[in-house]
Amino acid sequence: MAISQDVHTVKQFDIQLDNLRNLVLEMGGLVEEQLKHAVQALDDEDLSVAREVIARDRAIINGMKIKVDEDSVSLIALRQPMGSDLRMVMSLSNTANDLERIGDGAKKIARMTLQIYDGVSNPPSARLLRDVGPTAKLALEMLHGSLDALARLDVEKALQVAQGDEELDQEFQSALRRLITFMMEDSRTIGHAINVIFMIKALERVGDHCKNIAEHIVYLVEGKNAWYARADQTGE
Amino acid sequence: MAISQDVHTVKQFDIQLDNLRNLVLEMGGLVEEQLKHAVQALDDEDLSVAREVIARDRAIINGMKIKVDEDSVSLIALRQPMGSDLRMVMSLSNTANDLERIGDGAKKIARMTLQIYDGVSNPPSARLLRDVGPTAKLALEMLHGSLDALARLDVEKALQVAQGDEELDQEFQSALRRLITFMMEDSRTIGHAINVIFMIKALERVGDHCKNIAEHIVYLVEGKNAWYARADQTGE
Repeated sequence: MAISQDVHTVKQFDIQLDNLRNLVLEMGGLVEEQLKHAVQALDDEDLSVAREVIARDRAIINGMKIKVDEDSVSLIALRQPMGSDLRMVMSLSNTANDLERIGDGAKKIARMTLQIYDGVSNPPSARLLRDVGPTAKLALEMLHGSLDALARLDVEKALQVAQGDEELDQEFQSALRRLITFMMEDSRTIGHAINVIFMIKALERVGDHCKNIAEHIVYLVEGKNAWYARADQTGE
Repeated sequence: MAISQDVHTVKQFDIQLDNLRNLVLEMGGLVEEQLKHAVQALDDEDLSVAREVIARDRAIINGMKIKVDEDSVSLIALRQPMGSDLRMVMSLSNTANDLERIGDGAKKIARMTLQIYDGVSNPPSARLLRDVGPTAKLALEMLHGSLDALARLDVEKALQVAQGDEELDQEFQSALRRLITFMMEDSRTIGHAINVIFMIKALERVGDHCKNIAEHIVYLVEGKNAWYARADQTGE
Protein backbone atom coordinates (compact mmCIF):
# COMPACT_ATOMS: atom_id res chain seq x y z
CA MET A 1 0.00 0.00 0.00
CA ALA A 2 2.76 2.39 0.97
CA ILE A 3 4.69 1.46 -2.16
CA SER A 4 1.75 1.91 -4.51
CA GLN A 5 1.14 5.33 -2.97
CA ASP A 6 4.76 6.23 -3.61
CA VAL A 7 4.48 5.08 -7.20
CA HIS A 8 1.32 7.13 -7.54
CA THR A 9 3.06 10.21 -6.10
CA VAL A 10 6.04 9.81 -8.42
CA LYS A 11 3.77 9.43 -11.43
CA GLN A 12 1.77 12.50 -10.42
CA PHE A 13 4.97 14.47 -10.12
CA ASP A 14 6.17 13.36 -13.55
CA ILE A 15 2.86 14.41 -15.10
CA GLN A 16 3.03 17.82 -13.43
CA LEU A 17 6.64 18.30 -14.52
CA ASP A 18 5.76 17.29 -18.11
CA ASN A 19 2.86 19.74 -18.06
CA LEU A 20 5.19 22.51 -16.89
CA ARG A 21 7.68 21.74 -19.64
CA ASN A 22 4.92 21.67 -22.26
CA LEU A 23 3.64 25.00 -20.98
CA VAL A 24 7.10 26.56 -21.34
CA LEU A 25 7.51 25.07 -24.83
CA GLU A 26 4.09 26.40 -25.80
CA MET A 27 5.07 29.81 -24.45
CA GLY A 28 8.27 29.59 -26.50
CA GLY A 29 6.30 28.82 -29.66
CA LEU A 30 4.06 31.84 -29.09
CA VAL A 31 7.02 34.13 -28.36
CA GLU A 32 8.65 32.94 -31.58
CA GLU A 33 5.45 33.79 -33.49
CA GLN A 34 5.38 37.20 -31.80
CA LEU A 35 8.92 38.01 -32.89
CA LYS A 36 8.26 36.81 -36.46
CA HIS A 37 5.09 38.88 -36.68
CA ALA A 38 6.81 41.98 -35.27
CA VAL A 39 9.58 41.75 -37.87
CA GLN A 40 7.04 41.00 -40.63
CA ALA A 41 4.87 43.97 -39.61
CA LEU A 42 7.89 46.25 -39.96
CA ASP A 43 8.75 44.76 -43.33
CA ASP A 44 5.19 45.05 -44.68
CA GLU A 45 4.53 48.41 -42.96
CA ASP A 46 1.46 46.63 -41.55
CA LEU A 47 0.39 48.62 -38.50
CA SER A 48 -2.55 46.38 -37.61
CA VAL A 49 -0.22 43.39 -37.24
CA ALA A 50 2.08 45.53 -35.08
CA ARG A 51 -0.87 46.42 -32.86
CA GLU A 52 -1.82 42.74 -32.59
CA VAL A 53 1.69 41.88 -31.39
CA ILE A 54 1.41 44.49 -28.64
CA ALA A 55 -2.04 43.29 -27.59
CA ARG A 56 -1.01 39.62 -27.54
CA ASP A 57 2.00 40.35 -25.36
CA ARG A 58 -0.24 41.92 -22.75
CA ALA A 59 -3.04 39.34 -22.97
CA ILE A 60 -1.22 36.05 -23.51
CA ILE A 61 2.56 36.02 -22.99
CA ASN A 62 2.54 37.75 -19.60
CA GLY A 63 -0.30 35.52 -18.44
CA MET A 64 1.65 32.39 -19.41
CA LYS A 65 4.68 33.63 -17.49
CA ILE A 66 2.57 34.02 -14.35
CA LYS A 67 1.09 30.53 -14.87
CA VAL A 68 4.65 29.07 -15.12
CA ASP A 69 5.59 30.89 -11.88
CA GLU A 70 2.53 29.58 -10.06
CA ASP A 71 2.93 26.01 -11.31
CA SER A 72 6.65 26.02 -10.39
CA VAL A 73 5.92 27.18 -6.85
CA SER A 74 3.16 24.62 -6.40
CA LEU A 75 5.44 21.84 -7.74
CA ILE A 76 8.23 22.82 -5.34
CA ALA A 77 5.90 23.20 -2.35
CA LEU A 78 3.86 20.04 -2.86
CA ARG A 79 6.47 17.69 -4.31
CA GLN A 80 9.71 18.99 -2.80
CA PRO A 81 11.79 17.87 -5.77
CA MET A 82 15.52 17.30 -5.36
CA GLY A 83 18.46 16.90 -7.74
CA SER A 84 17.64 16.76 -11.43
CA ASP A 85 13.89 17.26 -10.83
CA LEU A 86 14.53 20.48 -8.92
CA ARG A 87 16.95 21.59 -11.64
CA MET A 88 14.24 20.96 -14.24
CA VAL A 89 11.73 23.15 -12.37
CA MET A 90 14.28 25.94 -11.83
CA SER A 91 15.47 25.82 -15.44
CA LEU A 92 11.93 25.94 -16.81
CA SER A 93 11.05 28.85 -14.54
CA ASN A 94 14.17 30.76 -15.58
CA THR A 95 13.52 29.95 -19.25
CA ALA A 96 10.02 31.41 -18.95
CA ASN A 97 11.61 34.56 -17.54
CA ASP A 98 13.86 34.89 -20.58
CA LEU A 99 10.98 34.08 -22.94
CA GLU A 100 8.91 36.84 -21.37
CA ARG A 101 11.74 39.28 -22.07
CA ILE A 102 12.04 38.10 -25.66
CA GLY A 103 8.30 38.78 -25.90
CA ASP A 104 9.01 42.29 -24.54
CA GLY A 105 11.55 42.66 -27.35
CA ALA A 106 8.92 41.73 -29.97
CA LYS A 107 6.56 44.26 -28.42
CA LYS A 108 9.25 46.93 -28.50
CA ILE A 109 9.85 46.35 -32.23
CA ALA A 110 6.09 46.57 -32.85
CA ARG A 111 5.94 49.86 -30.92
CA MET A 112 8.85 51.30 -32.91
CA THR A 113 7.08 50.25 -36.13
CA LEU A 114 4.03 52.25 -35.07
CA GLN A 115 6.26 55.19 -34.14
CA ILE A 116 8.02 55.07 -37.52
CA TYR A 117 4.95 54.73 -39.76
CA ASP A 118 1.82 55.78 -37.87
CA GLY A 119 0.66 59.17 -39.14
CA VAL A 120 4.18 60.05 -40.27
CA SER A 121 4.47 62.05 -43.51
CA ASN A 122 8.09 61.08 -44.23
CA PRO A 123 8.66 57.40 -43.50
CA PRO A 124 12.26 56.12 -43.22
CA SER A 125 14.13 55.14 -46.38
CA ALA A 126 14.71 51.46 -47.18
CA ARG A 127 18.44 52.07 -46.68
CA LEU A 128 17.86 52.98 -43.05
CA LEU A 129 15.89 49.80 -42.37
CA ARG A 130 18.15 47.52 -44.36
CA ASP A 131 20.02 46.22 -41.29
CA VAL A 132 16.99 45.14 -39.30
CA GLY A 133 16.33 42.08 -41.49
CA PRO A 134 19.73 40.35 -41.12
CA THR A 135 19.83 41.13 -37.38
CA ALA A 136 16.32 39.73 -36.93
CA LYS A 137 17.21 36.62 -38.94
CA LEU A 138 20.10 35.79 -36.58
CA ALA A 139 17.96 36.46 -33.50
CA LEU A 140 15.15 34.24 -34.81
CA GLU A 141 17.60 31.45 -35.62
CA MET A 142 18.95 31.58 -32.06
CA LEU A 143 15.43 31.52 -30.62
CA HIS A 144 14.36 28.60 -32.78
CA GLY A 145 17.55 26.72 -31.90
CA SER A 146 17.17 27.28 -28.17
CA LEU A 147 13.55 26.04 -28.19
CA ASP A 148 14.59 23.05 -30.25
CA ALA A 149 17.36 22.28 -27.72
CA LEU A 150 14.84 22.59 -24.88
CA ALA A 151 12.33 20.27 -26.56
CA ARG A 152 15.00 17.59 -27.08
CA LEU A 153 17.13 18.45 -24.00
CA ASP A 154 20.04 18.61 -26.42
CA VAL A 155 23.18 20.04 -24.82
CA GLU A 156 25.19 20.10 -28.07
CA LYS A 157 22.51 22.15 -29.76
CA ALA A 158 22.31 24.46 -26.73
CA LEU A 159 26.05 25.12 -26.86
CA GLN A 160 25.78 25.80 -30.59
CA VAL A 161 23.03 28.37 -29.92
CA ALA A 162 25.14 30.08 -27.26
CA GLN A 163 28.01 30.41 -29.71
CA GLY A 164 25.72 32.11 -32.24
CA ASP A 165 25.43 35.09 -29.92
CA GLU A 166 28.83 36.41 -30.96
CA GLU A 167 27.77 36.63 -34.62
CA LEU A 168 24.63 38.52 -33.60
CA ASP A 169 26.65 40.94 -31.45
CA GLN A 170 28.98 41.64 -34.38
CA GLU A 171 26.02 42.17 -36.70
CA PHE A 172 24.58 44.65 -34.19
CA GLN A 173 27.84 46.57 -33.91
CA SER A 174 28.25 46.78 -37.71
CA ALA A 175 24.64 47.90 -38.14
CA LEU A 176 25.13 50.54 -35.43
CA ARG A 177 28.22 51.87 -37.22
CA ARG A 178 26.36 52.03 -40.54
CA LEU A 179 23.44 53.86 -38.95
CA ILE A 180 25.80 56.40 -37.35
CA THR A 181 27.34 56.97 -40.79
CA PHE A 182 23.89 57.59 -42.34
CA MET A 183 23.07 60.06 -39.58
CA MET A 184 26.33 61.91 -40.18
CA GLU A 185 25.72 62.07 -43.92
CA ASP A 186 22.14 63.27 -43.63
CA SER A 187 20.95 64.76 -40.36
CA ARG A 188 17.31 64.48 -41.47
CA THR A 189 17.57 60.71 -40.95
CA ILE A 190 18.51 61.05 -37.26
CA GLY A 191 15.00 60.78 -35.78
CA HIS A 192 14.17 57.56 -37.63
CA ALA A 193 17.69 56.18 -37.18
CA ILE A 194 17.35 56.38 -33.37
CA ASN A 195 14.21 54.24 -33.59
CA VAL A 196 16.01 51.73 -35.81
CA ILE A 197 18.86 51.64 -33.26
CA PHE A 198 16.36 50.82 -30.49
CA MET A 199 15.01 48.02 -32.71
CA ILE A 200 18.33 46.36 -33.47
CA LYS A 201 19.29 46.79 -29.80
CA ALA A 202 16.12 44.87 -28.87
CA LEU A 203 17.10 42.11 -31.31
CA GLU A 204 20.62 41.97 -29.93
CA ARG A 205 19.12 41.49 -26.49
CA VAL A 206 16.90 38.66 -27.79
CA GLY A 207 20.18 36.88 -28.55
CA ASP A 208 21.38 37.40 -24.96
CA HIS A 209 18.18 35.82 -23.65
CA CYS A 210 18.51 32.88 -26.08
CA LYS A 211 22.03 32.37 -24.78
CA ASN A 212 20.61 32.36 -21.23
CA ILE A 213 18.04 29.72 -22.24
CA ALA A 214 20.85 27.61 -23.73
CA GLU A 215 22.65 27.84 -20.38
CA HIS A 216 19.52 26.83 -18.45
CA ILE A 217 19.41 23.71 -20.65
CA VAL A 218 23.05 22.85 -19.93
CA TYR A 219 22.40 23.32 -16.20
CA LEU A 220 19.26 21.19 -16.42
CA VAL A 221 20.91 18.30 -18.23
CA GLU A 222 24.40 18.33 -16.80
CA GLY A 223 23.84 19.99 -13.43
CA LYS A 224 26.76 22.28 -14.06
CA ASN A 225 26.01 25.74 -12.98
CA ALA A 226 26.28 27.51 -16.30
CA TRP A 227 23.97 29.75 -14.27
CA TYR A 228 26.83 31.03 -12.18
CA ALA A 229 28.70 32.07 -15.29
CA ARG A 230 25.87 34.08 -16.69
CA ALA A 231 27.19 37.35 -15.24
CA ASP A 232 27.60 39.25 -18.47
CA GLN A 233 25.08 37.78 -20.85
CA THR A 234 22.10 40.05 -20.79
CA GLY A 235 24.28 43.07 -21.46
CA GLU A 236 21.65 45.16 -19.65
CA MET B 1 5.65 17.89 22.70
CA ALA B 2 3.92 18.11 19.29
CA ILE B 3 2.97 21.70 20.00
CA SER B 4 6.47 22.75 21.05
CA GLN B 5 7.79 21.19 17.82
CA ASP B 6 5.26 23.19 15.82
CA VAL B 7 6.27 26.38 17.62
CA HIS B 8 9.89 25.54 16.91
CA THR B 9 9.11 24.99 13.21
CA VAL B 10 7.20 28.27 12.94
CA LYS B 11 10.00 30.14 14.66
CA GLN B 12 12.59 28.55 12.36
CA PHE B 13 10.52 29.60 9.35
CA ASP B 14 10.23 33.18 10.60
CA ILE B 15 13.99 33.36 11.08
CA GLN B 16 14.63 32.03 7.58
CA LEU B 17 12.11 34.45 6.10
CA ASP B 18 13.68 37.36 8.00
CA ASN B 19 17.10 36.30 6.72
CA LEU B 20 15.80 36.23 3.16
CA ARG B 21 14.31 39.70 3.53
CA ASN B 22 17.53 41.04 5.02
CA LEU B 23 19.50 39.50 2.17
CA VAL B 24 17.28 41.24 -0.40
CA LEU B 25 17.54 44.55 1.47
CA GLU B 26 21.32 44.17 1.62
CA MET B 27 21.36 43.44 -2.09
CA GLY B 28 19.22 46.56 -2.61
CA GLY B 29 21.69 48.68 -0.66
CA LEU B 30 24.58 47.40 -2.76
CA VAL B 31 22.72 47.97 -6.03
CA GLU B 32 21.96 51.53 -4.89
CA GLU B 33 25.68 52.07 -4.21
CA GLN B 34 26.51 50.63 -7.62
CA LEU B 35 24.17 53.03 -9.40
CA LYS B 36 25.49 56.01 -7.40
CA HIS B 37 29.09 55.07 -8.16
CA ALA B 38 28.33 54.57 -11.87
CA VAL B 39 26.78 58.04 -12.14
CA GLN B 40 29.59 59.56 -10.06
CA ALA B 41 32.26 57.89 -12.21
CA LEU B 42 30.72 59.47 -15.30
CA ASP B 43 30.53 62.85 -13.58
CA ASP B 44 34.14 62.71 -12.35
CA GLU B 45 35.44 61.02 -15.53
CA ASP B 46 36.88 58.44 -13.10
CA LEU B 47 37.52 55.31 -15.13
CA SER B 48 38.85 53.26 -12.23
CA VAL B 49 35.56 53.71 -10.35
CA ALA B 50 33.69 52.70 -13.54
CA ARG B 51 35.80 49.54 -13.74
CA GLU B 52 35.08 48.77 -10.06
CA VAL B 53 31.34 49.01 -10.72
CA ILE B 54 31.66 46.47 -13.55
CA ALA B 55 33.76 44.10 -11.43
CA ARG B 56 31.44 44.32 -8.42
CA ASP B 57 28.40 43.50 -10.56
CA ARG B 58 30.04 40.31 -11.70
CA ALA B 59 31.49 39.32 -8.32
CA ILE B 60 28.82 40.39 -5.83
CA ILE B 61 25.43 41.38 -7.21
CA ASN B 62 24.95 38.32 -9.44
CA GLY B 63 26.10 36.05 -6.61
CA MET B 64 23.54 37.57 -4.23
CA LYS B 65 20.78 37.03 -6.78
CA ILE B 66 21.68 33.34 -6.99
CA LYS B 67 21.73 33.11 -3.15
CA VAL B 68 18.23 34.65 -3.01
CA ASP B 69 17.01 32.11 -5.61
CA GLU B 70 18.49 29.20 -3.70
CA ASP B 71 17.17 30.37 -0.33
CA SER B 72 13.70 30.96 -1.79
CA VAL B 73 13.57 27.47 -3.26
CA SER B 74 14.76 25.89 -0.04
CA LEU B 75 12.19 27.89 1.98
CA ILE B 76 9.36 26.81 -0.34
CA ALA B 77 10.47 23.16 -0.45
CA LEU B 78 11.16 22.71 3.26
CA ARG B 79 8.52 24.96 4.82
CA GLN B 80 5.74 24.89 2.21
CA PRO B 81 4.54 28.39 3.09
CA MET B 82 0.99 29.46 2.26
CA GLY B 83 -0.88 32.75 2.02
CA SER B 84 1.05 35.81 3.12
CA ASP B 85 4.24 33.83 3.86
CA LEU B 86 4.31 32.46 0.31
CA ARG B 87 3.60 35.94 -1.03
CA MET B 88 6.56 37.24 0.96
CA VAL B 89 8.92 34.65 -0.53
CA MET B 90 7.65 35.25 -4.08
CA SER B 91 7.82 39.04 -3.71
CA LEU B 92 11.36 38.93 -2.33
CA SER B 93 12.47 36.61 -5.12
CA ASN B 94 10.91 38.85 -7.78
CA THR B 95 12.40 41.94 -6.13
CA ALA B 96 15.87 40.37 -6.31
CA ASN B 97 15.25 39.80 -10.02
CA ASP B 98 14.51 43.51 -10.55
CA LEU B 99 17.47 44.52 -8.35
CA GLU B 100 19.78 42.38 -10.48
CA ARG B 101 18.55 44.21 -13.57
CA ILE B 102 19.05 47.59 -11.91
CA GLY B 103 22.60 46.40 -11.20
CA ASP B 104 22.90 45.57 -14.92
CA GLY B 105 21.84 49.16 -15.62
CA ALA B 106 24.61 50.51 -13.37
CA LYS B 107 27.11 48.27 -15.16
CA LYS B 108 25.88 49.47 -18.53
CA ILE B 109 26.42 53.13 -17.50
CA ALA B 110 29.92 52.25 -16.29
CA ARG B 111 30.68 50.55 -19.62
CA MET B 112 29.46 53.56 -21.59
CA THR B 113 31.65 55.79 -19.41
CA LEU B 114 34.67 53.71 -20.39
CA GLN B 115 33.61 53.87 -24.04
CA ILE B 116 33.23 57.66 -23.90
CA TYR B 117 36.47 58.49 -22.10
CA ASP B 118 38.88 55.58 -22.33
CA GLY B 119 41.65 56.40 -24.81
CA VAL B 120 39.40 58.89 -26.62
CA SER B 121 41.06 62.05 -27.96
CA ASN B 122 37.84 64.09 -28.18
CA PRO B 123 35.65 63.49 -25.12
CA PRO B 124 31.99 64.58 -25.25
CA SER B 125 31.09 68.18 -24.40
CA ALA B 126 29.42 69.00 -21.09
CA ARG B 127 26.31 70.02 -23.03
CA LEU B 128 25.91 66.47 -24.35
CA LEU B 129 26.11 64.93 -20.87
CA ARG B 130 23.96 67.57 -19.17
CA ASP B 131 20.81 65.43 -19.22
CA VAL B 132 22.29 62.37 -17.55
CA GLY B 133 22.39 64.00 -14.08
CA PRO B 134 18.70 64.91 -13.77
CA THR B 135 17.61 61.54 -15.22
CA ALA B 136 19.92 59.71 -12.79
CA LYS B 137 18.61 61.77 -9.86
CA LEU B 138 15.02 60.70 -10.55
CA ALA B 139 16.05 57.05 -11.02
CA LEU B 140 18.04 57.08 -7.74
CA GLU B 141 15.11 58.66 -5.88
CA MET B 142 12.80 55.92 -7.13
CA LEU B 143 15.29 53.22 -6.13
CA HIS B 144 15.80 54.67 -2.65
CA GLY B 145 12.03 55.03 -2.20
CA SER B 146 11.31 51.48 -3.29
CA LEU B 147 13.91 50.02 -0.89
CA ASP B 148 12.54 52.21 1.90
CA ALA B 149 9.03 50.94 1.16
CA LEU B 150 10.32 47.34 1.23
CA ALA B 151 12.12 47.83 4.56
CA ARG B 152 8.98 49.23 6.18
CA LEU B 153 6.44 47.26 4.07
CA ASP B 154 4.86 50.62 3.38
CA VAL B 155 2.18 50.43 0.66
CA GLU B 156 1.60 54.20 0.52
CA LYS B 157 5.27 54.79 -0.11
CA ALA B 158 5.32 52.03 -2.73
CA LEU B 159 2.42 53.63 -4.63
CA GLN B 160 4.21 56.99 -4.46
CA VAL B 161 7.33 55.40 -5.98
CA ALA B 162 5.29 53.83 -8.79
CA GLN B 163 3.81 57.23 -9.64
CA GLY B 164 7.30 58.74 -9.92
CA ASP B 165 7.92 56.61 -13.00
CA GLU B 166 5.89 58.94 -15.20
CA GLU B 167 8.13 61.90 -14.35
CA LEU B 168 11.21 59.83 -15.17
CA ASP B 169 9.71 58.74 -18.51
CA GLN B 170 9.00 62.36 -19.42
CA GLU B 171 12.52 63.37 -18.43
CA PHE B 172 13.87 60.61 -20.68
CA GLN B 173 11.73 61.70 -23.64
CA SER B 174 12.78 65.37 -23.25
CA ALA B 175 16.44 64.40 -22.95
CA LEU B 176 16.13 62.21 -26.05
CA ARG B 177 14.62 65.11 -28.04
CA ARG B 178 17.42 67.45 -26.91
CA LEU B 179 20.09 64.91 -27.88
CA ILE B 180 18.53 64.48 -31.32
CA THR B 181 18.63 68.27 -31.73
CA PHE B 182 22.34 68.37 -30.80
CA MET B 183 23.07 65.62 -33.32
CA MET B 184 21.22 67.51 -36.04
CA GLU B 185 23.10 70.72 -35.26
CA ASP B 186 26.52 69.11 -35.18
CA SER B 187 26.99 65.70 -36.75
CA ARG B 188 30.36 65.28 -35.03
CA THR B 189 28.48 64.74 -31.74
CA ILE B 190 26.55 61.73 -33.08
CA GLY B 191 28.92 58.99 -31.89
CA HIS B 192 28.99 60.23 -28.30
CA ALA B 193 25.30 61.13 -28.34
CA ILE B 194 24.35 57.52 -29.12
CA ASN B 195 26.26 56.39 -26.02
CA VAL B 196 24.51 59.04 -23.93
CA ILE B 197 21.16 57.81 -25.30
CA PHE B 198 22.02 54.25 -24.20
CA MET B 199 22.85 55.65 -20.73
CA ILE B 200 19.61 57.57 -20.23
CA LYS B 201 17.70 54.60 -21.64
CA ALA B 202 19.33 52.41 -18.96
CA LEU B 203 18.25 54.93 -16.31
CA GLU B 204 14.71 55.04 -17.66
CA ARG B 205 14.64 51.25 -17.33
CA VAL B 206 15.86 51.47 -13.73
CA GLY B 207 12.63 53.38 -13.10
CA ASP B 208 10.58 50.57 -14.65
CA HIS B 209 12.23 48.04 -12.32
CA CYS B 210 11.63 50.29 -9.29
CA LYS B 211 7.98 50.44 -10.29
CA ASN B 212 7.98 46.62 -10.46
CA ILE B 213 9.48 46.45 -6.93
CA ALA B 214 6.77 48.82 -5.70
CA GLU B 215 4.18 46.44 -7.16
CA HIS B 216 5.80 43.42 -5.50
CA ILE B 217 5.42 45.28 -2.17
CA VAL B 218 1.72 45.99 -2.78
CA TYR B 219 1.20 42.32 -3.68
CA LEU B 220 3.12 41.21 -0.60
CA VAL B 221 1.18 43.42 1.83
CA GLU B 222 -2.29 43.46 0.30
CA GLY B 223 -2.30 40.16 -1.60
CA LYS B 224 -3.66 41.95 -4.64
CA ASN B 225 -2.00 40.81 -7.74
CA ALA B 226 -0.41 44.04 -8.84
CA TRP B 227 1.74 41.37 -10.50
CA TYR B 228 -0.92 40.63 -13.11
CA ALA B 229 -1.02 44.27 -14.11
CA ARG B 230 2.67 44.51 -14.71
CA ALA B 231 2.28 43.87 -18.46
CA ASP B 232 3.79 47.11 -19.69
CA GLN B 233 6.21 48.18 -17.04
CA THR B 234 9.58 47.06 -18.16
CA GLY B 235 9.04 48.65 -21.55
CA GLU B 236 11.48 46.12 -22.95
